Amino acid sequence: MLEEIREQPAALERTLKAATRDVERLRRRLRDNAPKLIVLAARGTSDNAAQFGRYLLEITTGIPVALAAPSIFTLYRAGIGLKDALVVGISQSGESTDTNLVIERAREAGAVTVGVTNSPTSTLARLPEHTFLVRAGKERSVAATKTYTGQLLMLYLLAYAVGAPIDPYRLHQLSEWVDAALRLESDISERAERYRFMEQTVVVGRGLNYSNALEMALKLMETCYVVAERFSSADFLHGPIAMVEASFPVFLFTPPGVTWPSLKEMLEKLERLGAETLVITDRGNQDARKLSSRSICLPAKIALKGQLTEDLYTPIPYIVPAQLFSACLASKKGHDPDRPRTLTKVTRTM
Amino acid sequence: MLEEIREQPAALERTLKAATRDVERLRRRLRDNAPKLIVLAARGTSDNAAQFGRYLLEITTGIPVALAAPSIFTLYRAGIGLKDALVVGISQSGESTDTNLVIERAREAGAVTVGVTNSPTSTLARLPEHTFLVRAGKERSVAATKTYTGQLLMLYLLAYAVGAPIDPYRLHQLSEWVDAALRLESDISERAERYRFMEQTVVVGRGLNYSNALEMALKLMETCYVVAERFSSADFLHGPIAMVEASFPVFLFTPPGVTWPSLKEMLEKLERLGAETLVITDRGNQDARKLSSRSICLPAKIALKGQLTEDLYTPIPYIVPAQLFSACLASKKGHDPDRPRTLTKVTRTM
Repeated sequence: MLEEIREQPAALERTLKAATRDVERLRRRLRDNAPKLIVLAARGTSDNAAQFGRYLLEITTGIPVALAAPSIFTLYRAGIGLKDALVVGISQSGESTDTNLVIERAREAGAVTVGVTNSPTSTLARLPEHTFLVRAGKERSVAATKTYTGQLLMLYLLAYAVGAPIDPYRLHQLSEWVDAALRLESDISERAERYRFMEQTVVVGRGLNYSNALEMALKLMETCYVVAERFSSADFLHGPIAMVEASFPVFLFTPPGVTWPSLKEMLEKLERLGAETLVITDRGNQDARKLSSRSICLPAKIALKGQLTEDLYTPIPYIVPAQLFSACLASKKGHDPDRPRTLTKVTRTM
Repeated sequence: MLEEIREQPAALERTLKAATRDVERLRRRLRDNAPKLIVLAARGTSDNAAQFGRYLLEITTGIPVALAAPSIFTLYRAGIGLKDALVVGISQSGESTDTNLVIERAREAGAVTVGVTNSPTSTLARLPEHTFLVRAGKERSVAATKTYTGQLLMLYLLAYAVGAPIDPYRLHQLSEWVDAALRLESDISERAERYRFMEQTVVVGRGLNYSNALEMALKLMETCYVVAERFSSADFLHGPIAMVEASFPVFLFTPPGVTWPSLKEMLEKLERLGAETLVITDRGNQDARKLSSRSICLPAKIALKGQLTEDLYTPIPYIVPAQLFSACLASKKGHDPDRPRTLTKVTRTM
């Protein structure tokens, strides 16, 4: 898992370079034929990537986005009106049977279909009209890391293909920022020591970084066996915050930008409750470091100053410290993060 | 909270009776003007109801459904293309500022808008073109119960207004089934004893009962301070199941119907891992009672035999045992379920 986390800068560069042709092809296809709706179908880590895609695509294109509930297709066998939709399946292995079934039904309904996968020979690479290949190299660890960031990158390219103002220069910079985040490894490994006996936690994120909260919680569950809840700061206030008592550990993604005021309010509330907070942030948000007793700070400034989407390019570099933290904590707890109990790499669901 | 749980049969009947005119008005409005997309906006318990609405509406109408991420409107201020959409805001108090903002933006964009609320004088009762009033009476407990089932009922009526084959006779039967579920109160109170020191759990549901898994987990978090994860059985297999070790408590909603085979597989896996499972089911699913070491069984058969939507009318009666369980467990833990720490009844978020 640690090795694959470290491979991410190279994987992102490789993926970005190789994608141009497929992305331009989809862009041409959609130019006079903009979708009225975008549907994203995925499971597990890929579904967390889809959550990011949902925010990214709605914010940057104004097209409504729905996350598919695969069981509606697989179990209830409903025929959904997807004629004017762009339907995107996301799966590391490309063999998620339910994700593939959504793509099949969408093609039959006349939708434009795209598959985002790490496996060029998989069903999901063949089934849809368009394929976006993540070139992360074979993922051996059961806990997905480099394919998650690869999927996020593909979703930026998908937004570009749909007409969003995505800056190619910034996409090239992502691997540098990930590189900078990787330099925190030994620091994060030392910090993880403190959490050796943590049994439960909450991870909070909002907007474009909500998906990272889901993904960090999933990594803590599957590699560290920590019962890790995950919430947007808004939903956390609607009830679940009652769980929090003194010393309760809470992790928060706090980039600069429009989500910061609500996360700041949450952080102040948590500090008053005596919770133990740790924020993941960057040099562009000094306030977050001051307000939280603990912080992991990316050695970079990633903000688009003066824009509503100031945090637009933060999600990929921000997940890296969380991946490192989970891998290090798993080791300190004596677990093998590459072979979590009960799990296999490809999960097939009805 | 217990009192309000007991008021549900009367609240459902009252709500159903009074809704006819508003429902027929919306039905006429949509007759020659079917929406291409349905968007549901809500927070907290109302958002759990929206999750049910998403399954119900897609399954019974074939129209794609998206759950709004309010921050896209409130923080990122994106303009989303909602002209041909039906946009529904759901809020007990009708004063969720972000839900109301989604409705405002949707009206400006030309969408048909509906507000589902328990408060006839609220902003959400005024703002949209159509109002569906839940007539549950004032909800005094911070933990929502009777307004949740009232919102589920309204979503059946919404599906009917959009053209779904909803059976009015079955809707009238719902209050009887809830009545039958309420007769389990003393039994459930005795059972709750065993969980006095439970600190963490997972609640699992799928399809139409996925929302109930979210809602039971929320009730356990806000009234019992239990760290309660919630998953669809498919997502649970994609990683989080690694957390489960011997004696880990798991609650499952297991109605008869198309979701049962996958829940059965999950239950068998959990039993092999030595987890302590408790299923909520009805007389129509004897298998579930046999496979799980513990069960709460509704004294009724609620299935539509031979239909893909056999479980169509199960969600309202099925949540009642979970509400009773949470209220009883809170008392046994020495908490006041009506006044959870840290929370207030109306939550305003940016």
